[in-house]
Amino acid sequence: MRVPRLFVDQNFSLGQTISVSESQAHYLIQVLRMSEGDKLRLFNGRDGEWLGKIFSISRRHCSLKLCSQKEKQNSEEDLWLIFSPIKRSRIDFVVSKATELGVIRILPVITDFTNVKRVNTQRLISNTVEAAQQCGRLSVPRVLEPQSLKSLLADWKVDRKLFYCDETRGGSPINKTFNDVKMKNKLNSAAILIGPEGGFSSSELELLNKNPNFTAIDLGPRVLRADTAAIAALSCWQAVLGDWSNA
Amino acid sequence: MRVPRLFVDQNFSLGQTISVSESQAHYLIQVLRMSEGDKLRLFNGRDGEWLGKIFSISRRHCSLKLCSQKEKQNSEEDLWLIFSPIKRSRIDFVVSKATELGVIRILPVITDFTNVKRVNTQRLISNTVEAAQQCGRLSVPRVLEPQSLKSLLADWKVDRKLFYCDETRGGSPINKTFNDVKMKNKLNSAAILIGPEGGFSSSELELLNKNPNFTAIDLGPRVLRADTAAIAALSCWQAVLGDWSNA
Repeated sequence: MRVPRLFVDQNFSLGQTISVSESQAHYLIQVLRMSEGDKLRLFNGRDGEWLGKIFSISRRHCSLKLCSQKEKQNSEEDLWLIFSPIKRSRIDFVVSKATELGVIRILPVITDFTNVKRVNTQRLISNTVEAAQQCGRLSVPRVLEPQSLKSLLADWKVDRKLFYCDETRGGSPINKTFNDVKMKNKLNSAAILIGPEGGFSSSELELLNKNPNFTAIDLGPRVLRADTAAIAALSCWQAVLGDWSNA
Repeated sequence: MRVPRLFVDQNFSLGQTISVSESQAHYLIQVLRMSEGDKLRLFNGRDGEWLGKIFSISRRHCSLKLCSQKEKQNSEEDLWLIFSPIKRSRIDFVVSKATELGVIRILPVITDFTNVKRVNTQRLISNTVEAAQQCGRLSVPRVLEPQSLKSLLADWKVDRKLFYCDETRGGSPINKTFNDVKMKNKLNSAAILIGPEGGFSSSELELLNKNPNFTAIDLGPRVLRADTAAIAALSCWQAVLGDWSNA
């Protein structure tokens, strides 16, 4: 069996004891049927990956001892995903996939045509933790509370490039855009913005078009659903500019 | 309201009458609440897109008349997706997304480590039809019955390049691989192969490695789920070699 991987938001040091949460204990004991002496891989988003051993188990509690550090914390691409919330299964999906695709921050935004009113941020966070555990990354992306797109854009820092998927086909082909950025300089910080299924409003497009830090990208002739567009754009970014481009 | 789009597998000509299937009639009448005189967009995968009008409606039947051709049939990228079946919601998802991403043929394959035993091909076909209607393409990808990966590879035609996602990180970065192909020549036919979550067996990897028509691609340091890998690889293909690369 593969050694299970667990995210635990506590400080790590050699020989330290870690008590996992009740739901994690349930998972380890009831689902994975683990017992004393069994091994686990642990990460906290700061101290790399550690090997741990279960040393005490009861019905609802599970304690581990940290045995050794297996991997140092690595640096990650500074990539954000900004998206208009969509319905339940699709939003879970986007958040999990964005985690696998190496995004470090997830920002739900309310746009003029956003249909979904309530976002369960706690559930989104659970999805990112689960996906991070599964995909082997050493951190969990931060999920922000929903905010208005317009106020987010109004406070935009100039050192972060934003690429928005323009359904009106006003953008340049995504691969050309990312290659041009790559030719010019090392891109340190970026964000991908995906609008709602109804597209951006004309006042939003105007705001987006006039800022030289914001670039429209085009994802071809077919109308992609918002979740597809998010995964597609993040994949192309990692492939050209991110950590998929290193041999 | 946007004019609804419907796939109908019948020949089209000006003024012709089309009787839609019972389930399509149900959708138009009960779900969309359409009535006589309402407009529809229709495609059959051969004759482009037509504008039609409902001219007769009853509880279970709906007839349309074809008014005019709005778009000619276009040529599509000759791209296949070959993948090891995964569990229910994820396989539905892959098939819908592959349709949005312009694949023309979907081939489920049974590999040494494939876990899923039964594939409901009919349900997959329904997913492709629904996705094709929604994304605006003029065709529906063909879904094949599951077959063995090894026999598929044994009969492989030399004029189609196959790119397989190698989880062991033996492949070249996806963007570099696709750019190299682009530099060399126009690629006419391609296939993306995604293995099961457990990866390919060593005998499968050997078969894949030794054929000069098969190229291993790498999707970065995180372990992607099979559905994520499929969408990511298809997106990168369209971005570099396919119809997302035209301005």
